[in-house]
Amino acid sequence: MKVNGTPYRTIWLDDDGRTVKTIDQRWLPHEFRVVDLTSREDVAIAIKDMWVRGAPLIGATAAFGMAIQMGIDPSDASLHETWDILHDTRPTAINLKWALDDMRALLMPLAPADRVEAAYRRAVEICDEDVEICRQIGLNGLKIIEEIAAKKCGKPVNILTHCNAGWLATVDWGTATSPIYHALEKGIEVHVWVDETRPRNQGAHLTTWEMVSHGVPHKLIVDNAGGHLMQHGEVDLVIVGTDRTTAHGDVCNKIGTYLKALAAHDNNVPFYVALPSPTIDWTVKDGVKEIPIEERDGEEISHLWGKQEDGSIGQVQVSPDGAEHGNPAFDVTPSRLVTGLITERGVCDASREGLAGLFPEFAK
Amino acid sequence: MKVNGTPYRTIWLDDDGRTVKTIDQRWLPHEFRVVDLTSREDVAIAIKDMWVRGAPLIGATAAFGMAIQMGIDPSDASLHETWDILHDTRPTAINLKWALDDMRALLMPLAPADRVEAAYRRAVEICDEDVEICRQIGLNGLKIIEEIAAKKCGKPVNILTHCNAGWLATVDWGTATSPIYHALEKGIEVHVWVDETRPRNQGAHLTTWEMVSHGVPHKLIVDNAGGHLMQHGEVDLVIVGTDRTTAHGDVCNKIGTYLKALAAHDNNVPFYVALPSPTIDWTVKDGVKEIPIEERDGEEISHLWGKQEDGSIGQVQVSPDGAEHGNPAFDVTPSRLVTGLITERGVCDASREGLAGLFPEFAK
Repeated sequence: MKVNGTPYRTIWLDDDGRTVKTIDQRWLPHEFRVVDLTSREDVAIAIKDMWVRGAPLIGATAAFGMAIQMGIDPSDASLHETWDILHDTRPTAINLKWALDDMRALLMPLAPADRVEAAYRRAVEICDEDVEICRQIGLNGLKIIEEIAAKKCGKPVNILTHCNAGWLATVDWGTATSPIYHALEKGIEVHVWVDETRPRNQGAHLTTWEMVSHGVPHKLIVDNAGGHLMQHGEVDLVIVGTDRTTAHGDVCNKIGTYLKALAAHDNNVPFYVALPSPTIDWTVKDGVKEIPIEERDGEEISHLWGKQEDGSIGQVQVSPDGAEHGNPAFDVTPSRLVTGLITERGVCDASREGLAGLFPEFAK
Repeated sequence: MKVNGTPYRTIWLDDDGRTVKTIDQRWLPHEFRVVDLTSREDVAIAIKDMWVRGAPLIGATAAFGMAIQMGIDPSDASLHETWDILHDTRPTAINLKWALDDMRALLMPLAPADRVEAAYRRAVEICDEDVEICRQIGLNGLKIIEEIAAKKCGKPVNILTHCNAGWLATVDWGTATSPIYHALEKGIEVHVWVDETRPRNQGAHLTTWEMVSHGVPHKLIVDNAGGHLMQHGEVDLVIVGTDRTTAHGDVCNKIGTYLKALAAHDNNVPFYVALPSPTIDWTVKDGVKEIPIEERDGEEISHLWGKQEDGSIGQVQVSPDGAEHGNPAFDVTPSRLVTGLITERGVCDASREGLAGLFPEFAK
């Protein structure tokens, strides 16, 4: 999407065909910084420290990490070691493993000398595939927005979203935001309630930045507000992304998603999850019982980043010295609370049957 | 309760019997500042700008505001004007109106010359009554904790709370925290999950400070985390406070309370509300439909206060320039989601019948 009028993707190859460029999203929304990734260590840090985040973008970045390393050392040992190093960066995102497995399966049969070219070609292809997937998700989700818009008699469709499943979380378009961007292109009036998404404030920092950059009508709200807005008819539709969806339709996403799904259910507000099929984990059924949830550092809660009064980026400590913190990073929304899954192949029920109908080749 | 070993109330009279002292809670948890209130304007600012907050403390502060003004001008006009000025400071807290009505009803029949003494006497009495109410709430809530503790085989009772219904929100003991402090005094092991409570971070700034100050085992969590913890059996009990409870048991409290009640209901976790009876609004039945919800400044969302790297208190801007914000301050939890109400007279169902059973003289 566009930044100050210039179209960008979130990750791309420089003119030399080897240097990988990405946006260091930690500086958003206050600074737009483009950085070079030139080693697998750069890539590991970029994923682990969340310069890049969002399941699809993490997958694409890991693929480039593998390609960069093949340019440095294309041996079998290097290939396996890179898989391990990059896989260890974030335990929850299923796309990470998917992309690394895909790259390794492609490269292992090749002679080491042939690996670097093949790796870059495939990494670029993974990016292009992601863009097309997101575009299709947008077109499929657009139908849902159009149906609601038809009942709103010209009033804006109010859409609530949590975290950033925007174009910044993918290579382009986004997942949860793709239907919104497509609705805008069709001239449908929308208004987006953006959940702040503590502790890392991806909603405030990233989704709101996307909305401001594109002129999308929006209001940033605290994570506590969505239930109240739904009680008062101020939300027509919830669309969120997901880091991992189970074969039975349970949805693992940023912590707090489950609370919004409960509120949507209690107020008869449709609750949709937009997901590219690589984020479906066909090996897992019961998300609450089976998906391990990352416990992150308490400093994400005690300290908050932002623009200081002098304009520089810095942090403030919000909790007292001596405070203890608990910081689970994701939660699982049971399929019973999900109205539907918006995929690149269409919209389906959040159930084994629904997913199997769209993806018969993966379902068991 | 104690601060560095010294017992404090949140509001008290200085030795001169006229100067009112309170804690400027905006500086917590990083600085403990005691301030003098010497005019009704001081009092209005202290309430409006949330130097003091919490329904019971707001009521007590307003009562002192009336007393201070009687020392300056005890005329009828001054009395009515003071009622208006102080009532306009915070629209949602029912205690505010209760305390102001109580003071005016006492003072109006008196000769102006007799008003100042009577006003101070009554304001002090309102404080003492609040302390006794909170103590009784604690003893009644203690029974619930004891019952859960008996089933936990020596493991700590995990209690989640939202916002600050601690002693800082009352004159002493707190409402939601009073059962916790009483449980500690009885040697019951407890562990408190403290919701951060965006946008104003009362959980991070105040409840966590209380917990640290008293050595209560706790973990500060973001508002998004409670549902996940309940799904995984990490919460035995929720106790929150309330700014206003309707005659039918609907609970108006800090924004986000409703989401936690939904999660508790979905996971069979008992959800209790601790309330002093002056916070019951006998004139309102359906809280969602009837209670006006304060919309506060968006800057509470865009800017966050805390301790900066140099140790001074300052703020950072978390959302981008150009962002729009929505900031409803409270929500209403329907009575169907509330396990019980813990009052100074006992614990009852969150229903008209439950409340009428404990307070037959007010119920209609």
